[in-house]
Amino acid sequence: MAATDNIHPVSDRMLSRTEKQALLRQRGVVMWFSGLSGSGKSTVALALERKLHAEGILTKLLDGDNIRTGLNKNLGFSDEDRLENIRRIAEVSKLFAHTGVVVLCSFITPTHELRAIARDTIGSADIIEVFVKASFQTCESRDVKGLYAKARAGKLALFTGKDSDFEIPQTSDLVLDTEKESITESCDRAYDSVISHIRIEQ
Amino acid sequence: MAATDNIHPVSDRMLSRTEKQALLRQRGVVMWFSGLSGSGKSTVALALERKLHAEGILTKLLDGDNIRTGLNKNLGFSDEDRLENIRRIAEVSKLFAHTGVVVLCSFITPTHELRAIARDTIGSADIIEVFVKASFQTCESRDVKGLYAKARAGKLALFTGKDSDFEIPQTSDLVLDTEKESITESCDRAYDSVISHIRIEQ
Repeated sequence: MAATDNIHPVSDRMLSRTEKQALLRQRGVVMWFSGLSGSGKSTVALALERKLHAEGILTKLLDGDNIRTGLNKNLGFSDEDRLENIRRIAEVSKLFAHTGVVVLCSFITPTHELRAIARDTIGSADIIEVFVKASFQTCESRDVKGLYAKARAGKLALFTGKDSDFEIPQTSDLVLDTEKESITESCDRAYDSVISHIRIEQ
Repeated sequence: MAATDNIHPVSDRMLSRTEKQALLRQRGVVMWFSGLSGSGKSTVALALERKLHAEGILTKLLDGDNIRTGLNKNLGFSDEDRLENIRRIAEVSKLFAHTGVVVLCSFITPTHELRAIARDTIGSADIIEVFVKASFQTCESRDVKGLYAKARAGKLALFTGKDSDFEIPQTSDLVLDTEKESITESCDRAYDSVISHIRIEQ
């Protein structure tokens, strides 16, 4: 029996997304940051979250690190598990966006296939895709988490950019080049890109 | 390699739960409704959601039906999948509660083990366990979704109450007897139980 047999969605009686957005006086949307480890995804997302919060906007930041310790702690880094990792995150993001929350997702999301899963699950009207751009060499030299050193020493399997490719996104809504602009500049550009999706005319 | 190796939680730099709750002027909490199919779980949860929303409280209703068509659409009804179903729902509920949202979960959750997974994942300070009580005979006679008829005809595998036991909760924070009280009465009692957990003194 398929999981969806004998399922009777009650959403017709549930409060609508529109009602929740009216309560919050904001629209829900997902801003999805992809890029290499060390590219600055989470740093920009964290700065953006603080900026939005200061304006009274309710946000949720989902991050490879905190999701991997909870919802997805039973997943590894095989191709199959990476697909399931992104699928679950996208489904959770959708639940938040449909509650009117502005979701900031920070995940490497290295392949076209993974980004398509995110986009198709969330729905293209509700996702803003941001590519956080920095070369492997730059990320390796930053090595904020010491992961590149571990990868060089062969202590990390399946490290993106070394053992597996990062496919450059071709259809991003926004590219943030963290080699050329400061975190503040990247944050401001991300803000400019998302704010019109959030604001509801009063 | 375990999924949690090389994970560096950024939560120290993330906005705190307290900051989000201050923005929303409410505390996040999870109210978890368990009971047989047809006991009235979702009906009470839906009524409670409308009542809370009317007071300006942001809620999220998670339901076996809508979760099974999204996040958990790759799970069936084996014992293993039922555990994973509840584990994921509890992790998602926790993400919402930590964002300050009042989460209403409506799931059969038929065993002590499943309810313990929910409680342990969410944390006992953040969960209110509600047992929605109605006998198998009553639920069968209501048969809102036509599932009991299907189960009798042998067209449903693993139907709770018929093919597998519903273990009566011994440690609920609240019992709603939908054979003896109306939906409005049950909703009001659920409201009385949760509201002090939500309100932040102004």
